[in-house]
Amino acid sequence: MEAPAYSDIRQAKSRINHRILETPVMQSSMLNELSGCHLYFKCENFQKAGAFKYRGATNAILKLNPEALRQGVCTHSSGNHAQALALAAAQAGTKAYVVMPESAPRNKVEAVRNYGADVFFCYSTLEAREEKLKEVQNATGAHFIHPYNHPDIIAGQGTAALELLKIQPGLDVVMAPVGGGGLMSGTAIATKHINPGITLIGAEPAGASDAQQSLYSKKLIPSVQPKTIADGLLTSLSDLTFSILSTHLDDILTCTEENIVLAMKLIMERMKIVVEPSAAVPFAIILEHKAMFRNKRVGMIVSGGNLDVSNFFPDNTDK
Amino acid sequence: MEAPAYSDIRQAKSRINHRILETPVMQSSMLNELSGCHLYFKCENFQKAGAFKYRGATNAILKLNPEALRQGVCTHSSGNHAQALALAAAQAGTKAYVVMPESAPRNKVEAVRNYGADVFFCYSTLEAREEKLKEVQNATGAHFIHPYNHPDIIAGQGTAALELLKIQPGLDVVMAPVGGGGLMSGTAIATKHINPGITLIGAEPAGASDAQQSLYSKKLIPSVQPKTIADGLLTSLSDLTFSILSTHLDDILTCTEENIVLAMKLIMERMKIVVEPSAAVPFAIILEHKAMFRNKRVGMIVSGGNLDVSNFFPDNTDK
Repeated sequence: MEAPAYSDIRQAKSRINHRILETPVMQSSMLNELSGCHLYFKCENFQKAGAFKYRGATNAILKLNPEALRQGVCTHSSGNHAQALALAAAQAGTKAYVVMPESAPRNKVEAVRNYGADVFFCYSTLEAREEKLKEVQNATGAHFIHPYNHPDIIAGQGTAALELLKIQPGLDVVMAPVGGGGLMSGTAIATKHINPGITLIGAEPAGASDAQQSLYSKKLIPSVQPKTIADGLLTSLSDLTFSILSTHLDDILTCTEENIVLAMKLIMERMKIVVEPSAAVPFAIILEHKAMFRNKRVGMIVSGGNLDVSNFFPDNTDK
Repeated sequence: MEAPAYSDIRQAKSRINHRILETPVMQSSMLNELSGCHLYFKCENFQKAGAFKYRGATNAILKLNPEALRQGVCTHSSGNHAQALALAAAQAGTKAYVVMPESAPRNKVEAVRNYGADVFFCYSTLEAREEKLKEVQNATGAHFIHPYNHPDIIAGQGTAALELLKIQPGLDVVMAPVGGGGLMSGTAIATKHINPGITLIGAEPAGASDAQQSLYSKKLIPSVQPKTIADGLLTSLSDLTFSILSTHLDDILTCTEENIVLAMKLIMERMKIVVEPSAAVPFAIILEHKAMFRNKRVGMIVSGGNLDVSNFFPDNTDK
């Protein structure tokens, strides 16, 4: 598999433009003051299905030939990719089949079903997932769309940075959270082509720092028993994303769990937007490494807003 | 005191335009589907100081003559008016003096102080507030700016509806929450002038339905021991707002506490924006009276987003 080129990201943008939302770039003078730099939040929490994942899923689906499209698409995911693929498939008039671990939160399962996808449960080991996925593929003929190890997915995710840099071409730093590395890969390819002078920094929780370890040791180190509330960032890099990030990233930084929670609180309190923990990680890193960012113009991809807000209402009002 | 005219609202808009944010009007296809109508959310939770109150406060301050302005402004409020007046005063280069009950939440006191205002504490009775306010006025010569019983405040609040109707002139219904009635009064005057065919509905919690009782019985009934989580809607109407609402409102509807919480959850979950309970009341009323709104185009002023989000993180991560 080859890395997508900048031209693939431009083409992805034209391909998906009528389906996606051009999400706003928000600023907050209070957060600028607090962090000592100029922050530009690219708000993919407002994207359809609540996260940037809808961009890649839509691009991958719209690139299928008519026959493949008719057979439907499938994936294994308990997170935002599952919802994004389910909605993108429905929009394209085809079916999505999603393999999810039995332990997946009910609200996530419901969200995927509400978009019209069929859900298949499996044990939560990687082996069980892959076995179940193969079973589903054999039964349906559906096309497998990996959450990040796929050039079309990466090209789709890169369109968020394209929009950010169109509005703010003069940034000093661009950051995105790193889980499987699809978003950061697309962001890196778009950013380095548009302005090679921009410093590219990956953002990871200290409790799931496999990408940092991989980049620092120059070999792919899988994520083993990650511990973080940033549930979108638990996965390992793939060969493809590892190779792209090795080529383009200037650095990859980590932050504590306390700073992720603080960053979430500040974003919700000051900017009045709902973000999931993973989406707050770049800002958490700025809070943790303030001196590095002093007076810089920093663009960040706010990856998603799929937070289970019912946790926020602890009484029995949910009944 | 006389009600402001439509021309006062237009003038207020020109006067404050360089200070306020033209907040977005948001839509959600999922919430439309759920409620069976077409919803247009005018997002004043994104306004400076986190609520529509900044419009009225700025208008009232910018109308002061230079000498009055030098002496500063004062008010009694434990809520959004206090923060709005503090910020508006700072922006105008003058001082705000705010009387707050000793029982006011610390984060609200801090927010007011952070905007540069002086805070004076009093007992939480109305008498104690007014006495303390008089004391502060005598000592400072500051000009009292009432939270809603003031034509300049009402004219300022009306500018939100002006912006909403510029973007969506063809609405069938316009709603706003009713506490002291300043927002609803300004909204009513602007709306009925621009399009008298629009149905104007005030939105109140059933646990604080003094405005509904007042309008139905055609006499001002004060709010006595209101019980609601919508803490911005506890106050009584004034003579001025009662008179304006009596003239213009088509109806005033109420909703349960359960529906306020449900509405907040749905807005946060689906639209990814943070709203305070008071701001969710119009949508709660739609959920409670669905048949009335079927297929209608409904504009709502989302009044504010000053929610104490630290309640949402129940563990000890705040330390």
